[in-house]
Amino acid sequence: MSESIPASLPLRNDLIGEEPYGAPQLDVPVCLNVNENPYAPDPAVCDSIAARVRRIAPTLNRYPDREHIELRQAFATYLKRESGVDLSVDQLWGANGSNEIMLQVFQAFGGPGRTALGCDPTYSMYPEYARDTFTAWRVAHRNEDFTLNVERTIAAINEVHPAIVLLTSPNNPTGTPLNMADLKRILAACETAPVAGAAEGVHPVVVVDEAYIEFRNLGTPSAVTLIGEHPNLAVSRTMSKAFAFAGARVGYMAASKGIIDCLRIVRMPYHLSAITQAAALAAFEHTDEQLSRVGHLRDIRQQTAAWLKTQTYQGRPLEVAESESNFLLFGGHFADRDRIFRELLDRGVLIRVVGPEGWLRVCMGTDEEMARFRTALAEVLAEPQDAD
Amino acid sequence: MSESIPASLPLRNDLIGEEPYGAPQLDVPVCLNVNENPYAPDPAVCDSIAARVRRIAPTLNRYPDREHIELRQAFATYLKRESGVDLSVDQLWGANGSNEIMLQVFQAFGGPGRTALGCDPTYSMYPEYARDTFTAWRVAHRNEDFTLNVERTIAAINEVHPAIVLLTSPNNPTGTPLNMADLKRILAACETAPVAGAAEGVHPVVVVDEAYIEFRNLGTPSAVTLIGEHPNLAVSRTMSKAFAFAGARVGYMAASKGIIDCLRIVRMPYHLSAITQAAALAAFEHTDEQLSRVGHLRDIRQQTAAWLKTQTYQGRPLEVAESESNFLLFGGHFADRDRIFRELLDRGVLIRVVGPEGWLRVCMGTDEEMARFRTALAEVLAEPQDAD
Repeated sequence: MSESIPASLPLRNDLIGEEPYGAPQLDVPVCLNVNENPYAPDPAVCDSIAARVRRIAPTLNRYPDREHIELRQAFATYLKRESGVDLSVDQLWGANGSNEIMLQVFQAFGGPGRTALGCDPTYSMYPEYARDTFTAWRVAHRNEDFTLNVERTIAAINEVHPAIVLLTSPNNPTGTPLNMADLKRILAACETAPVAGAAEGVHPVVVVDEAYIEFRNLGTPSAVTLIGEHPNLAVSRTMSKAFAFAGARVGYMAASKGIIDCLRIVRMPYHLSAITQAAALAAFEHTDEQLSRVGHLRDIRQQTAAWLKTQTYQGRPLEVAESESNFLLFGGHFADRDRIFRELLDRGVLIRVVGPEGWLRVCMGTDEEMARFRTALAEVLAEPQDAD
Repeated sequence: MSESIPASLPLRNDLIGEEPYGAPQLDVPVCLNVNENPYAPDPAVCDSIAARVRRIAPTLNRYPDREHIELRQAFATYLKRESGVDLSVDQLWGANGSNEIMLQVFQAFGGPGRTALGCDPTYSMYPEYARDTFTAWRVAHRNEDFTLNVERTIAAINEVHPAIVLLTSPNNPTGTPLNMADLKRILAACETAPVAGAAEGVHPVVVVDEAYIEFRNLGTPSAVTLIGEHPNLAVSRTMSKAFAFAGARVGYMAASKGIIDCLRIVRMPYHLSAITQAAALAAFEHTDEQLSRVGHLRDIRQQTAAWLKTQTYQGRPLEVAESESNFLLFGGHFADRDRIFRELLDRGVLIRVVGPEGWLRVCMGTDEEMARFRTALAEVLAEPQDAD
């Protein structure tokens, strides 16, 4: 694509040669590549969405509620139910997908001279947020099993003096849960850590990206339970995954009022449309239905992980990263993951080439989709392979 | 608000003390402050929006079409009808309001070391886009009558070597149209002008913000007619104003494919929801109805401008800036515009304190709303005023 950009255009020097981010959007029978919930909203949910949109449609000549108060209340109600935490409207904030939430975080706290720290392998959009806001991006490597290396992360915090520490729970693309004790140690370290380029007494914001948190094992707490005690903690959530609402683009953040007030400075005025607000409110009226398949997807994850471990590649069993998400990172020693990806695609199954070399990621589909995935993968693995 | 931000948060140094952008959202009988179209969508339009949203609702568990191809085609169809210009899908791009379009422009072409040039007085969001992207913001002052000072603008282009030249047609908050001959002179100047910090052969992008263009006088061409000849020209449009769709947040840009490809590098993946795409497509099915009041609003503008010129303040007739938009900048010599604003508000009429000292802006409402505005303003002007 970049070749199509004429040399006369003043594209930022550091963007020259860059490609737009995003997985290929292909028309394939089985799409297991972008961690969507495979279950479509029920007709009753669809009816409620259309009814709510119809109700506000006569107001569409007017700008929406810039502060989206009713929706922020709905986020609070949901988190009370989901994680048992009491948060006020002032502690919640919505945007067009958690992408936009994160961009606002980087716009408010990042910028030239500022650094964001993540723990890789992790979500491949993070460096793009950093690039788009001129924030330096640094990483502390995870352990071999993809758990957080807390010592290494704290050492990095004390070395690079980040403005933003970005943790991911569960992590993408590995699915690795974030241990609450580990999070607390990092929060404690940040509460005395300086921020490069900022005044004394300024400390990093710790952002926990909980896009997939509803898929965690039962009984595991969410970072939102710590917000009351930690004014520099922000937790990003989304309706795209467990809530089966990716097409509506609704992300949100739970944090101290101070953090939300910082985001309000950089948000575009009226960033969240009246239609998006209405649709999200309608979906929240059907929280039970929207989340009804989460338990089943968790079961499918366990079954699929068990099945994958029975498969072999070049005579060795596949590895599967421990996941509390709706996807699995598997393989570990694929010498030619692009070929495996393509051969699955030839069989109508789209997964994702992402994460460290040797691994592939598959997200959980319906029972039927997973059966097709298993059949296709078994075929591909059974083929004679060129030894590398 | 800023006082609520704890000192421990690493808010960007240059944002400390800043307030969120936006006009007050007050519950007032007559809102003439944010240049909305006062006419609500017809019931048939509302029905179509709800029906389109209902149709796509069962797909909401999936991500939307990242490239929003059908909507870009609808933009092309609309511009063909509205300005007689043939553009392809590759030459169009949509986002959540023209705010997001402009942010993407600044993200792609601005940044540290880059400068954007505007012609003030102009839209008060432009410096915010610059601030949020670390782009320097410079201005070339307009003439006394708010028309572009072409010589001064070209001199500034040759002095500051901007990456972005931002023109506004009609200008906000003055309503001043942009003369096509002036635009062509600026385009010609830019086609040989260097860009600071960029390679040789790179020239500024000229962005014409046509948010209010549908309100222009009949027969005036739009800058979109020049896109075919000028690869560095981009024209920003919105459905918020004439199209009476502010609540849906749909802005778009017409430009060379190269410019659109630059925006695609910095856009958030899936920035435009499936619901927004569906609602906008439904609105475009009703282009006639949505635009049916534009002519009437143009007439109201002419009548209101004529009426304002009959009013006096401190013994002198009010000035009214020549406007081809749906708002009027008036006064010119108000010694106490904040008082006039407040006294109108006391009478249930909300207008906007914006633009150069001594002026106020009012946008065109319904006949009844304008009658209330006239009554209220006549009362306020009739009061004894403290001489300053």
